[in-house]
Amino acid sequence: MTITITAFERSPDRGEGLARDMRVRWALEEVGQPYDVRLLSFKAMKEPAHLAIQPFGQIPTYEEGDLALFESGAIVLHIAERHAGLLPDDANARARAIAWMFAALNTVEPPVFDRSLCKILERDKPWYEQRLRYLEDSIRNRLDKLSDRLGDADWLDGAFSAGDLLMVTVLLRLKKGSDILDEYPNLSAYAARGEARPAYKRAFEAQLAVFTAASTG
Amino acid sequence: MTITITAFERSPDRGEGLARDMRVRWALEEVGQPYDVRLLSFKAMKEPAHLAIQPFGQIPTYEEGDLALFESGAIVLHIAERHAGLLPDDANARARAIAWMFAALNTVEPPVFDRSLCKILERDKPWYEQRLRYLEDSIRNRLDKLSDRLGDADWLDGAFSAGDLLMVTVLLRLKKGSDILDEYPNLSAYAARGEARPAYKRAFEAQLAVFTAASTG
Repeated sequence: MTITITAFERSPDRGEGLARDMRVRWALEEVGQPYDVRLLSFKAMKEPAHLAIQPFGQIPTYEEGDLALFESGAIVLHIAERHAGLLPDDANARARAIAWMFAALNTVEPPVFDRSLCKILERDKPWYEQRLRYLEDSIRNRLDKLSDRLGDADWLDGAFSAGDLLMVTVLLRLKKGSDILDEYPNLSAYAARGEARPAYKRAFEAQLAVFTAASTG
Repeated sequence: MTITITAFERSPDRGEGLARDMRVRWALEEVGQPYDVRLLSFKAMKEPAHLAIQPFGQIPTYEEGDLALFESGAIVLHIAERHAGLLPDDANARARAIAWMFAALNTVEPPVFDRSLCKILERDKPWYEQRLRYLEDSIRNRLDKLSDRLGDADWLDGAFSAGDLLMVTVLLRLKKGSDILDEYPNLSAYAARGEARPAYKRAFEAQLAVFTAASTG
């Protein structure tokens, strides 16, 4: 059955791989599943046809036969449950990998994403500098603990998993306009290991090609 | 095998059921699984014994035999996968319920939680009023869409699921010091339906009893 995902027609990150379709593309590349992409304008994202499958008017979505899913974390988990390569076979190790997926999205991503938003939306607000420092302290608070846990391991809990996939995408967002990740050599190396995976590279090239085509078309 | 979770020895919400152990207690009550609770002081949460099972020094955790898990979303999913009552049997409906779990924690909770933090940590800042309004607009942006999707249904996608459980806990946080939820009669009624479930009530009483005992002990 054909898998179709949605992505920005013209990504606000200009093809830097920070939009959330990147996670889904990477997961599909890791498990070797081909997919189609339906590109959406900002206008189309808010229209009834898209809201029917993404109630909050965002990207990405995932369609396969009768199934329509939203939320990048849920989509990556769905892919990981159905194809080998993103979750360990051992039941306890599998549950721990899923815990790292939630940790990436619910514990580490919020201050990282808030910082990105703050830099765009609050730059002209009187509180901007102070709030940015506050968010960066929150991020360091998370990264201190993440760095301690990772230590000198390659991945968070044994073999590469969907937990690492999501955590790497969250850490890579920090590289845009910030040196925070450089303060943690083991986390920088961890993110670089993610970027070096052939599946990551294929996914990155695919999303960049969309932006390049939109810009030159 | 005995299930043991961790919770605050003295919850900052004074037993109002907003700490994240509430979600796990509620899920365990829905599926009829008994559990033990290990209470932690703020000091104990930052010590190596706890960091070994919760890398970010938070509560709750979940231990059962050799398995130790963290992240309330991952714990609720683990419980839902192993016991009937929190996920539909149909594979597509199950995947959609999991999408609502991620939506609750990754799309709706961030601005709701930020608002709680802002009210505690930024009250004396010069930008407080403006920032609070900004966060409340972000929350309304999410709730507008959530309300449209729910319509006059009882639950988000058919029968009550782990997705509803997490979404209700997120919405209930809004009732503390805000009237925003009242602007959405269908979402208020939805949250009230969650609170009216016998399993919710048992979980709520259990966490309140911890706070009451700590205060009178």
